[in-house]
Amino acid sequence: MTDPHVVGAGMIDFGELYEQSFDDLLESAYLSLIENVDKGVDPSDIDAAWYGTIDIANEGSSGSAVAHATGLFETPITRVENACATGSDAFRNAAQAVKAGDAEVALVIGAEKMTDSTEGLIASAALERLWRGRGVTMPAYFGMRATRHLEEYETTREQIAEISVKNHENGTKYPHAHQQFECTVEDVKESPTVSYPLNLYDCCPVTDGACAVLVTSEERAREFTDDPIRVAGYGLASDTFQRGAPEALTNFPATRQASSQAYERAGLGPDDIDVAEVHDCFSITELITYEDLGFCEDGKGGQFVDEGRPHLDGDKPVNPSGGLLSKGHPIGATGVAQIAEIFEQLRGEAGDVQVDSPEVGLQHNIGIGRNATGAVSCVNILERP
Amino acid sequence: MTDPHVVGAGMIDFGELYEQSFDDLLESAYLSLIENVDKGVDPSDIDAAWYGTIDIANEGSSGSAVAHATGLFETPITRVENACATGSDAFRNAAQAVKAGDAEVALVIGAEKMTDSTEGLIASAALERLWRGRGVTMPAYFGMRATRHLEEYETTREQIAEISVKNHENGTKYPHAHQQFECTVEDVKESPTVSYPLNLYDCCPVTDGACAVLVTSEERAREFTDDPIRVAGYGLASDTFQRGAPEALTNFPATRQASSQAYERAGLGPDDIDVAEVHDCFSITELITYEDLGFCEDGKGGQFVDEGRPHLDGDKPVNPSGGLLSKGHPIGATGVAQIAEIFEQLRGEAGDVQVDSPEVGLQHNIGIGRNATGAVSCVNILERP
Repeated sequence: MTDPHVVGAGMIDFGELYEQSFDDLLESAYLSLIENVDKGVDPSDIDAAWYGTIDIANEGSSGSAVAHATGLFETPITRVENACATGSDAFRNAAQAVKAGDAEVALVIGAEKMTDSTEGLIASAALERLWRGRGVTMPAYFGMRATRHLEEYETTREQIAEISVKNHENGTKYPHAHQQFECTVEDVKESPTVSYPLNLYDCCPVTDGACAVLVTSEERAREFTDDPIRVAGYGLASDTFQRGAPEALTNFPATRQASSQAYERAGLGPDDIDVAEVHDCFSITELITYEDLGFCEDGKGGQFVDEGRPHLDGDKPVNPSGGLLSKGHPIGATGVAQIAEIFEQLRGEAGDVQVDSPEVGLQHNIGIGRNATGAVSCVNILERP
Repeated sequence: MTDPHVVGAGMIDFGELYEQSFDDLLESAYLSLIENVDKGVDPSDIDAAWYGTIDIANEGSSGSAVAHATGLFETPITRVENACATGSDAFRNAAQAVKAGDAEVALVIGAEKMTDSTEGLIASAALERLWRGRGVTMPAYFGMRATRHLEEYETTREQIAEISVKNHENGTKYPHAHQQFECTVEDVKESPTVSYPLNLYDCCPVTDGACAVLVTSEERAREFTDDPIRVAGYGLASDTFQRGAPEALTNFPATRQASSQAYERAGLGPDDIDVAEVHDCFSITELITYEDLGFCEDGKGGQFVDEGRPHLDGDKPVNPSGGLLSKGHPIGATGVAQIAEIFEQLRGEAGDVQVDSPEVGLQHNIGIGRNATGAVSCVNILERP
């Protein structure tokens, strides 16, 4: 049994890419990966691929879309869809296949053309089946978590806003980020209300993007780079909105379950994580995620921010890339991009957002099925071998 | 490294199930599986799931839909989409995870609510991006293959029709089949033209359905049954319509590539296959598939039928279940159901469609991405251990 290793990553600048088709996004990310592999990669070495997209533009995209964008026509290509955890779950499936020996050199590629969606902004996207008729949009769903967190704990509105401030500051230093501007806690509090208590700057933007990474076996990793990064663990879990468990109003059980799977596989715990890219679709989501991942105690997410711990120079830097709030959230690409960012961090190649000598990095998504049946979380842990 | 084994299967009767929701289909297939496992299975034993649907009704279905239908809320559930190979690729991903040791007891579940599709009948579904404007519907696409096969080889219209006759005859004996009626070659030839030379009885119907199977490791297989079936090999490949290769007009390169991967993994060849469930979305598709899988030489698919070899009492029985032509083609469920049928055949439990003492069975899908970028094929091979 081999350990999967990440040996390369390629990412395009995220943004409102009206001038690029969905195929263009896939092709650009793939070519960026091919150019970025330290010792080069011959496309014929790639013997399997996993492709993440929720196909929000409803193009009917299957694995063959990647075959066209890359020329990998005879290669097995599986499309994975798992709400906002789509990209990270595509990565997990690739890692499993490499571990099984069924793939030796696996491409993971994610893309989303959010600006082509007929569903409109994430900010207004409704959860379709059960909740739309009850007015529960995505911001409303997360807004209710924020309200409850403010009520149950000593969390303040300012602490929630500070997460957006931090991530936008990081994003100004990260070349691929979409919304590159700094803002203050006051700016966040005074931006237009989307769904109380969340305002516009508490919400991630609508962003197109794509990213690709290369995963291979321990045995073959050094064919591609002298500095491979080991996949130490991964986890995936679902949850429901309909159990009515009170604790689920201030946290996400799916994240707790997925991260405990990943920690167990890796033989690591929250204290071992040196850098994390987590799912900040809304500012409150990141605050809750600190608690769900075990970075701090339940109810102490606000204090964790106040102490500066998740900041770039803190002891537990979270979202040095600017996170979804600044970088954007092209759904199928998001998890793959977070893997690429952790890969760069662990190799010391993260430029102006490089944190201090990380050995272990964690990537996290929490998603909500469009059919509103529940939440899904995926967590991957990478480490320097 | 362990070999994955199938240890149970549950399937619902396929049909126009207007009275059942998509969730009902998932729940029914899951409960049928749970009831059918010889020695029983405790749902808490299931530690991962793969879920196949193309979500043709555009419900935005993710892994959490299966969590709701099954109660497996803390279980990793990945949704796989790969055109008509969706169910079979979900199975392949589950098998890989079991092989990797990341899952010990994996659920594979597929479902499709074709009657809820806004795209209408398969018979009229157009390939969206490139070809719709040029009039190339699914039946037109396969019809052109038929025309070319008739032109290039000694294939006759009657031989193509005979496949539909055979599969409908089988379907009358298979309890889960949707369209249970017998027809003659003349009936097929006189049924209304859909796209020349294919008539109505050359086309699979529009069918709702769901199916679930259970995959586990060799070590744990006998906890669930004394008669497990080994997963011997699998393969997946894509292809394009845009290469203009003449040989691709009379066969499907993706099937050739996927089956050669599966044969190689299994250490087996076409001569070793005792029973097959293959993708007969149209009668011509099955004829071409005989050649693509190596059951006969190129151009000899018609002769293969004439000799009675793919019939229930032939030496190479194909689609004893009635195939997609009789049983129906609820896309995400189709591949999983074929796995369930091969599982039953190899265990000698196929009732009126049981073939004579098969040791090795093959399952095959060929699909076309809705965005018309290309074809995808998945092949799985099962055998008695």
